[in-house]
Amino acid sequence: MGLQQGGESASVATRPISARVVAEVLRGVAQVDFMPSVVCGLFFVAALFAADWRYGLYGLLGSAVSTAVAYGLGLDRETVGAGLHGYNGCLVALSCAVFLGAGHPATVAVAALGSAVAVVVTVGLGALLATWRLPALTAPFCLVATAVTAAAPGFRRLWQGAGAPAALPVPAAGPTGLSWDQLWHGFFANIGQIFFMPQWYVGLLFLAGLFAASRLAGLMACAGSATGLLTAWVFGAPGEAVGQGLLGYSGVLVALALCGVFLAPDAWSAAYALVGAAGATVLTPALGAASAPFGGHAFTWPFVLTTLLFLAAVPAVPRLRRT
Amino acid sequence: MGLQQGGESASVATRPISARVVAEVLRGVAQVDFMPSVVCGLFFVAALFAADWRYGLYGLLGSAVSTAVAYGLGLDRETVGAGLHGYNGCLVALSCAVFLGAGHPATVAVAALGSAVAVVVTVGLGALLATWRLPALTAPFCLVATAVTAAAPGFRRLWQGAGAPAALPVPAAGPTGLSWDQLWHGFFANIGQIFFMPQWYVGLLFLAGLFAASRLAGLMACAGSATGLLTAWVFGAPGEAVGQGLLGYSGVLVALALCGVFLAPDAWSAAYALVGAAGATVLTPALGAASAPFGGHAFTWPFVLTTLLFLAAVPAVPRLRRT
Amino acid sequence: MGLQQGGESASVATRPISARVVAEVLRGVAQVDFMPSVVCGLFFVAALFAADWRYGLYGLLGSAVSTAVAYGLGLDRETVGAGLHGYNGCLVALSCAVFLGAGHPATVAVAALGSAVAVVVTVGLGALLATWRLPALTAPFCLVATAVTAAAPGFRRLWQGAGAPAALPVPAAGPTGLSWDQLWHGFFANIGQIFFMPQWYVGLLFLAGLFAASRLAGLMACAGSATGLLTAWVFGAPGEAVGQGLLGYSGVLVALALCGVFLAPDAWSAAYALVGAAGATVLTPALGAASAPFGGHAFTWPFVLTTLLFLAAVPAVPRLRRT
Repeated sequence: MGLQQGGESASVATRPISARVVAEVLRGVAQVDFMPSVVCGLFFVAALFAADWRYGLYGLLGSAVSTAVAYGLGLDRETVGAGLHGYNGCLVALSCAVFLGAGHPATVAVAALGSAVAVVVTVGLGALLATWRLPALTAPFCLVATAVTAAAPGFRRLWQGAGAPAALPVPAAGPTGLSWDQLWHGFFANIGQIFFMPQWYVGLLFLAGLFAASRLAGLMACAGSATGLLTAWVFGAPGEAVGQGLLGYSGVLVALALCGVFLAPDAWSAAYALVGAAGATVLTPALGAASAPFGGHAFTWPFVLTTLLFLAAVPAVPRLRRT
Repeated sequence: MGLQQGGESASVATRPISARVVAEVLRGVAQVDFMPSVVCGLFFVAALFAADWRYGLYGLLGSAVSTAVAYGLGLDRETVGAGLHGYNGCLVALSCAVFLGAGHPATVAVAALGSAVAVVVTVGLGALLATWRLPALTAPFCLVATAVTAAAPGFRRLWQGAGAPAALPVPAAGPTGLSWDQLWHGFFANIGQIFFMPQWYVGLLFLAGLFAASRLAGLMACAGSATGLLTAWVFGAPGEAVGQGLLGYSGVLVALALCGVFLAPDAWSAAYALVGAAGATVLTPALGAASAPFGGHAFTWPFVLTTLLFLAAVPAVPRLRRT
Repeated sequence: MGLQQGGESASVATRPISARVVAEVLRGVAQVDFMPSVVCGLFFVAALFAADWRYGLYGLLGSAVSTAVAYGLGLDRETVGAGLHGYNGCLVALSCAVFLGAGHPATVAVAALGSAVAVVVTVGLGALLATWRLPALTAPFCLVATAVTAAAPGFRRLWQGAGAPAALPVPAAGPTGLSWDQLWHGFFANIGQIFFMPQWYVGLLFLAGLFAASRLAGLMACAGSATGLLTAWVFGAPGEAVGQGLLGYSGVLVALALCGVFLAPDAWSAAYALVGAAGATVLTPALGAASAPFGGHAFTWPFVLTTLLFLAAVPAVPRLRRT
């Protein structure tokens, strides 16, 4: 989401156009976790196909539509090439498939429209946040996906009984002690839930992709996931939800963003990142509750809000510095 | 909302004060649709009276109170003269009449207080958005009207059984195929609902006012309304709501704003405007659902949010340029 | 929240460190009402202990944790010394005690984490708002407290039956005429509810602290409270809620902020402040309704939103000037 493609780009220009576009679409998928890496994108797409082949297709569709719209609008080529216009579309399309049902034609239509609009939202939000040198992160995805899921019940072709209906949030129930299985499932599921996938082996594939792109990113994802588990356990989140990664996915992204991606990695930024990850873990059920009454979801809003505020504070904190 | 009054203003200064103030109040009504035109304002006021004489009075009251407060605060005369401080007050007062009942004394009081506060909100929001050269659009109205409708049930003199109570949103029901009557009623009602009026003939009067002020504005209003109808039909909105203009009114405003008012009119901006209108049409039930649990309404929030993001993106899009 | 400590600071540097830190923590409590005054802080802490000794401890804990974190991050010493990093933590910790129950260990833990995160949020929001020379006010507290109260039911150790569950807002019931007792109780309770305290004698102690720090501040608090009572009565708020200060506490803060603290005190700013106080009084049940469906509270959001917009408007209003 913020890294330029760096060394990889030099060689790209000489490849045939079709190969270059494929690389950009894959980088778009990888940029969901900030990685401008084709190899990482291949791992991520494999993870989506491992969960469900239709999710793999939707993820590619979203990244491809967004990248195409970015070309059509004549946006900055380097940004497009780094995959920075693909990741929001990828997540928008995936969220449509997961929450509206992958098999309906109207889901494909709204996924394509949403991925196209996400490009405009990315550029617009990016211009607003540029005032403070802040990145848009996944805010464009969160905005579009929140709009689509809240709107869907109002459209009969979009709403075919899939997804949870609007309801008041209820206090958590069920045991809070974590079983060994919930613990290690949750550790990987925290990484997979960034793409809405609760299976531990899917999360493991995403983690492998992260390590393939950057050892530091892999380590911070692990640290963020562990912080999420610890925070959820301390305050008594239900073990079943923890085991599905529903509490910790934003913490993983916060840890990645605040130590290595946007802040220079050192002990201070690592501590800062883990405090942020703990905060995002508490924020996740809060935003789940806030969106429940209109049928929305927390998505990665906890990550976006936490990271934006923590990054905005950096210039006043002498111990931290931007990359 | 953004156009200065241009040629009309030169002659205004020499008229008697009372005539000048009347012209400014009428321009305030016309600026709801971005038109700094007295003739257009006359059409709009006629449309309101055609719906209900009390709505006509409330609309004039709101524009008049706001304009008076703007004078009292000593705000920039040219902006006041163009009607740019009247339109939010006009809509605030109308929304009080429509949602709280026009006949109660407390409704008049809150309409006047709201129209006064709307001026401060307009100036304050305008200062914030000026950082990115963005207009406040109808955001001041949306903020004040959302606050008043959400607050009203907490005040026994404001809440006399009018309006819908707070409720969880429910999935749409009823047939989605559009009858011929629903289609052409909806086409005009989309324009009338900008002022909360569902009658087709009221919408027709508003459209006549737009054409009287600017042929391009009339055409874009038609295109935006048609896009709203098409989008609503594609995704399966209930025909009855479509026929009352409840899905398409924000699309009309988006189309006006993005092709002619804030962006130079050409094929690119027309396409951009219609994608925005489609997006705003999907956003409308989303914001309706989001505000239903606290008794709020979508108002023109879908227009405001869509247009602000689409305008913010413009500097990065080489195909588009601001007027 | 915005006043630097002024004359008091000169002598502070020569005191022993422990006395200096105690002074800073007390100033942190006083800054909830904008007063950089140790004496005022002593009054405020006494008021909290008069309500419940545990509330006194939580208030001190929050201010102390925030001040310590501000030192740890190496933030600007003068700002820390004025208590400008303590007041949000003080309110965060108090809100945890009031809404989650003061006696649970998990409440202490979340109060400490929340007070720490509030420092980062204060710096981050401050950096964003600095673009327009706007202060963060109590927005950091409101953000953290809204997150914690919305999240709490999702964590079984945080949610032990205290606080009201999520529910749809219902229209107000009960008589609206104010009895004499409700009137004068409400007058003081409006000041006490800034710290969540409904007892009239607690509010009286807070008012005494204000007068001890600044006669103008004491007078504006009285004017704001009276405006809140009047507005609530005009629109028909239930007398019982008015008597507990639930309608007017934001108006008190608005009146303080807009006449004396951020705007130079004169007749114009006094009128501006009282219009703002009336607006915040209407906004209070609106934000209560908006947060009820997810188990949130209005907190001082009405004050924050009103004051930010009213302050943002000031540069365009020739009659008003910033301090």
